[in-house]
Amino acid sequence: MARHAIGLDIGGTKVAGAVVAEDGTVVAELTEPTPQTSDAATMTALLLRMTEALREKSSEVTAVGVGAAGTVEWPSGRILWAPNNEYRDWNIRAELEDATGLPAVVDNDANVAGLAEALLGDTLYREMILITVGTGVGSGIVLGGQIYRGPHGFGAELGHIVVDPNGPPCGCGKRGCLEALASGTALTRTGREAAAADPDGLIASLARERGVPVTGQLVTEAAQQGDPVAVELFQTLARWLGIGIATMTTIFELDAVVIGGGVVDTGDLLLTPAREAATEFAYAPQVRPLPPVLPSSFGSDAGKIGAALLALAH
Amino acid sequence: MARHAIGLDIGGTKVAGAVVAEDGTVVAELTEPTPQTSDAATMTALLLRMTEALREKSSEVTAVGVGAAGTVEWPSGRILWAPNNEYRDWNIRAELEDATGLPAVVDNDANVAGLAEALLGDTLYREMILITVGTGVGSGIVLGGQIYRGPHGFGAELGHIVVDPNGPPCGCGKRGCLEALASGTALTRTGREAAAADPDGLIASLARERGVPVTGQLVTEAAQQGDPVAVELFQTLARWLGIGIATMTTIFELDAVVIGGGVVDTGDLLLTPAREAATEFAYAPQVRPLPPVLPSSFGSDAGKIGAALLALAH
Repeated sequence: MARHAIGLDIGGTKVAGAVVAEDGTVVAELTEPTPQTSDAATMTALLLRMTEALREKSSEVTAVGVGAAGTVEWPSGRILWAPNNEYRDWNIRAELEDATGLPAVVDNDANVAGLAEALLGDTLYREMILITVGTGVGSGIVLGGQIYRGPHGFGAELGHIVVDPNGPPCGCGKRGCLEALASGTALTRTGREAAAADPDGLIASLARERGVPVTGQLVTEAAQQGDPVAVELFQTLARWLGIGIATMTTIFELDAVVIGGGVVDTGDLLLTPAREAATEFAYAPQVRPLPPVLPSSFGSDAGKIGAALLALAH
Repeated sequence: MARHAIGLDIGGTKVAGAVVAEDGTVVAELTEPTPQTSDAATMTALLLRMTEALREKSSEVTAVGVGAAGTVEWPSGRILWAPNNEYRDWNIRAELEDATGLPAVVDNDANVAGLAEALLGDTLYREMILITVGTGVGSGIVLGGQIYRGPHGFGAELGHIVVDPNGPPCGCGKRGCLEALASGTALTRTGREAAAADPDGLIASLARERGVPVTGQLVTEAAQQGDPVAVELFQTLARWLGIGIATMTTIFELDAVVIGGGVVDTGDLLLTPAREAATEFAYAPQVRPLPPVLPSSFGSDAGKIGAALLALAH
């Protein structure tokens, strides 16, 4: 008999859900916008509605898996804190199990996305990290084919390693984190500085034409159009990402470094300078070759698929 | 019956050997200076002489363990490369096994020292890193009670994570590594700069009086005498160490961070500013408390003890 699980990925703008088979096949899908008020009660009600709707699509559902941004205590499945959501100390695993009667697992969103990339990517990776570059920088570490998260789920926060102690402030309250220098938010900051310094440049002009503030998205667009200022900002972001990758490959012996998140949609615009910086800062490459730095195979689908795979494995 | 193993720790200046019991008790000891010519043939002959001499001290020796600086391939026990020794691609494990008839294991020196600190320190640490601050910066990572080294032993090189991409050159060929900023070698470099800038200062005066070049050791002595210039150099080193510790505790969920190597003999002169910087850069301390940052329990004995414990476990 085929075994299916429901995977739910709670993001800042949407909650992605799917029924997934053991081989990673997506049997059914459902997406809902993240409510403006993302407190625990509102979010629990939404997840339960989605779970019931997805359960009707398959009689083989045996478990539920959830991936969520923030610090998720493992294995209790309590979400302690998240930088961009209102929920705090949310006992989501117990609530889901009580309401559905199904066993549930809850983990960090990048952890489960990393699991999907490791198990179902171009080849099977036993040693891999996924770095997601979006509004923030998230990460999943897979060692020996298993998610590394530390005994209580507090490890693997690669977005907050210090890459420049004199660098800009980070949303987390520190300064110089990888996320402060290599995220969409970082690109918003440097793009606004560039627009202020050059009001006739493409970045400022695009924002004015559309009547919107400068965002990382808009800088990306300007870079894709070849604007030299935007390209340089993008290369600076990519260089910081590459420096972070070099540090990761110094600590871990990896088969691959996989880059996910919205920003990787730019392809070589991000990956080429990131690879160059990772090569420049790689330790002892004569005996420890730098692993390949690759774009993700599943993009924004990795979270819901990985959450379901984790549920099926428990 | 008690089981003993021989542990050998190959350092830049000496090779430390011991017969060690399963509970970590040192039954016998033997130390030899590292030969000026540290090529593989010379070193193999020395290790075999030491092994035979130590074997005569106990009839219960069942295995040999070696810890060595550099990149050690695991589990083959081939030392591929070391920054401060001449040996290259040295198949030491096979040579020891052939010559002694005993099973042997060979691992990175800081890995085995980390194992000793985790198993036999103040409490049993299942999740711990050891950072050794000496001429260089070494590290051992213990996860789930086991040494983490990656599938082939190429991981856990914390001395070469990038903490300042615009920082000084490192002996490894890169720049801005933790080792380039937080090692005895870094203190030698900053001490020489300080002596050149202030020929009447204590650092320059001490070197002149003794007719020796400025070294990290001499800067340490000046700092212990309260020289404000030397104290500031020492605090700068300690701050970089603390920044490295913050990055480690962001990636790993740890019970403790243990600091070893010669420089930790200065105690709070190193540890207090290192803890301050680690606290300043710790990620999300409201939900992920910073683990204690402690001096090593075994100092320079940790390598030979850990090498023997690893041999007994295999």
